[in-house]
Amino acid sequence: MNKKDLGKKALALHKKLGGKIFTGLAIPIKTRDELSLVYTPGVGAVSTYVAKHPKAARDYTIKGKMVAVISDGSAVLGLGNIGPLGALPVMEGKCALFKTFANVDAFPLVLDTQNVDEIVETIVRIAPAFGGINLEDISAPRCFDIEARLKERLDIPVMHDDQHGTAIVVVAALINAAKVVKKKFAELRVVIAGAGAAGTAVAKLLLCAGIKDIIVLDSRGPIVRGRERLTIYKEELADLTNPRGISGDLNDAMRGADAVIGVSGPGIIKAEQVRRMGEKSIVFALANPVPEIMPDEALRAGAKVVATGRSDYQNQINNSLVFPGVFRGVLDHRVKKITDEMKLAAAKNLAALVKKPTAQKIIPGPFEKGVMQAVARSIK
Amino acid sequence: MNKKDLGKKALALHKKLGGKIFTGLAIPIKTRDELSLVYTPGVGAVSTYVAKHPKAARDYTIKGKMVAVISDGSAVLGLGNIGPLGALPVMEGKCALFKTFANVDAFPLVLDTQNVDEIVETIVRIAPAFGGINLEDISAPRCFDIEARLKERLDIPVMHDDQHGTAIVVVAALINAAKVVKKKFAELRVVIAGAGAAGTAVAKLLLCAGIKDIIVLDSRGPIVRGRERLTIYKEELADLTNPRGISGDLNDAMRGADAVIGVSGPGIIKAEQVRRMGEKSIVFALANPVPEIMPDEALRAGAKVVATGRSDYQNQINNSLVFPGVFRGVLDHRVKKITDEMKLAAAKNLAALVKKPTAQKIIPGPFEKGVMQAVARSIK
Repeated sequence: MNKKDLGKKALALHKKLGGKIFTGLAIPIKTRDELSLVYTPGVGAVSTYVAKHPKAARDYTIKGKMVAVISDGSAVLGLGNIGPLGALPVMEGKCALFKTFANVDAFPLVLDTQNVDEIVETIVRIAPAFGGINLEDISAPRCFDIEARLKERLDIPVMHDDQHGTAIVVVAALINAAKVVKKKFAELRVVIAGAGAAGTAVAKLLLCAGIKDIIVLDSRGPIVRGRERLTIYKEELADLTNPRGISGDLNDAMRGADAVIGVSGPGIIKAEQVRRMGEKSIVFALANPVPEIMPDEALRAGAKVVATGRSDYQNQINNSLVFPGVFRGVLDHRVKKITDEMKLAAAKNLAALVKKPTAQKIIPGPFEKGVMQAVARSIK
Repeated sequence: MNKKDLGKKALALHKKLGGKIFTGLAIPIKTRDELSLVYTPGVGAVSTYVAKHPKAARDYTIKGKMVAVISDGSAVLGLGNIGPLGALPVMEGKCALFKTFANVDAFPLVLDTQNVDEIVETIVRIAPAFGGINLEDISAPRCFDIEARLKERLDIPVMHDDQHGTAIVVVAALINAAKVVKKKFAELRVVIAGAGAAGTAVAKLLLCAGIKDIIVLDSRGPIVRGRERLTIYKEELADLTNPRGISGDLNDAMRGADAVIGVSGPGIIKAEQVRRMGEKSIVFALANPVPEIMPDEALRAGAKVVATGRSDYQNQINNSLVFPGVFRGVLDHRVKKITDEMKLAAAKNLAALVKKPTAQKIIPGPFEKGVMQAVARSIK
């Protein structure tokens, strides 16, 4: 289906549905007796008990199963800052995926503010009913601050999926891509084109995974110590990455690289640059819907393993492989913080699902069996 | 079932359910094609459209069908200030009733703050995903300020059910009780024992309904002009009610009254006081679970029509007759504010469902047909 037809069909479907999720009842209420158990007066005993034993909220209320999917609409898909109402269909879709892939109950909240302090305060205040918070489509660098502050304030896990969901699936794919090209994972020279939410989180998780030689680029070129006007987030990246101190532009960064990961925008990687990478190079062009370089072009330029974020090409690298399982694990194991070790374990377990990785298959598809479970058992 | 057994049974049921509501999917997702319509890339067209046409959110997202049930846990049932987690089982139960009685999708949010400004700001910020806000179990007088400020800030209806749900069902019951005792409704002399959320709202809706002689009492006696240390809310009541300027205590207020409405606490109305009311008196003792006076005692003291909030006595006056229909009407008719006229219409339509009111039957039961519809068609 072409893009225009798909859009028309999606609009028609959404209008027909009038919202993709609804509130279901765990128990039907048909009699006065049932009413008096679920509501007043019977519910009074439950309220009294939970008020006295706050930890019991996970057993007696939705807190044990419900995740909030929260966005301020500042960085929605490839659409940019379209605000809370524009973000709502995406957040509902995300909730639908949570349910579909992991039987996680999730509810969308879109915020009528883009002020960092207000977002943090709002989420802290609505947190009691939830077992976890999935932040979504919040622009960088605000997302870093918001996530860090919420993690400090709350005793339930908070995960910005654009960062960590992406990082986990990218690391999983890269583990298998390295096998395909028969290179040692930890010795890969990796270029990350894009220093937003995804690029930053991918870089950090690759470091945790043992990779030493990473160059991250923003619109002004490689992030390197001493570069002028770096934000505190990019200063941190400059300290952690680019050990050879490469400056210049994407040409300079990609020369001799084993892998390039595009988390930036359409068409910014050129065939010429792929040609100058190391032997049997790996190209992940994850901008969606239009990748940094089209797969055919990358292959013609000599890339050995190519992946995109799109479902119509092989090797789709998509967060939906990850976030349902992450929160299934969070809820099942009553996790309070999602650590780097958990994320790395999730990446490794996800990669291990592909028994014999090939250039055409480095990552499972979204409907493959065992994907959610492989991730969920890592988050504990 | 006695109270202790009911409580035990409710605890066991809640632990088994682990939350009374869940997130259901309006459409199952089984294939990549369905995935690409509900989520990326197809959903992009919906987001773009809704961002450009905010009013379309009601057609294309959950905003058209979803109500938020929000509490800060400051005045939960008869349990008092037990905080957000303690309130959660009640709010879930309320959501279950919304679905059961009116097919309204509702989601519970419990707030980790009891600061009025913070509550207002939080609700304003999470409002975009919802078509209406049901405030619940928020203590007076804070509830008045919170509701008023939210009504000013939001373009979706905000209703504090402890106030207006109660007021609507009480007025409905009183309309029919007046018929039973063959007195003119507008000429009733009414005493309201309790000047909290419910008492205040009942007084105001009775005034709208044409009743002139209302005396509202708080713990210090009748609210009357010139009484010392009145809050601004009680000053307003002093201006609107008590035209004969009665002061003193409940004995003084009830002498010769046609109806007394208890929205206060257990046992505060004495048989002796009922005996001194006018002929064929009406007694609504709505404190729950222990009423202001037990029905048998009120009847023995000469009351002609008696009602309580309890399901185990005749004439149960309960908000659950009202709030599901109110929000069904709100959503169906895309109402932006719930007005006094709408509330009064709801009370009259609800009363009219009982074709021939008797002392034993002045109000429909919660499972009777047509209750929700009678209310819903009034809110437009």
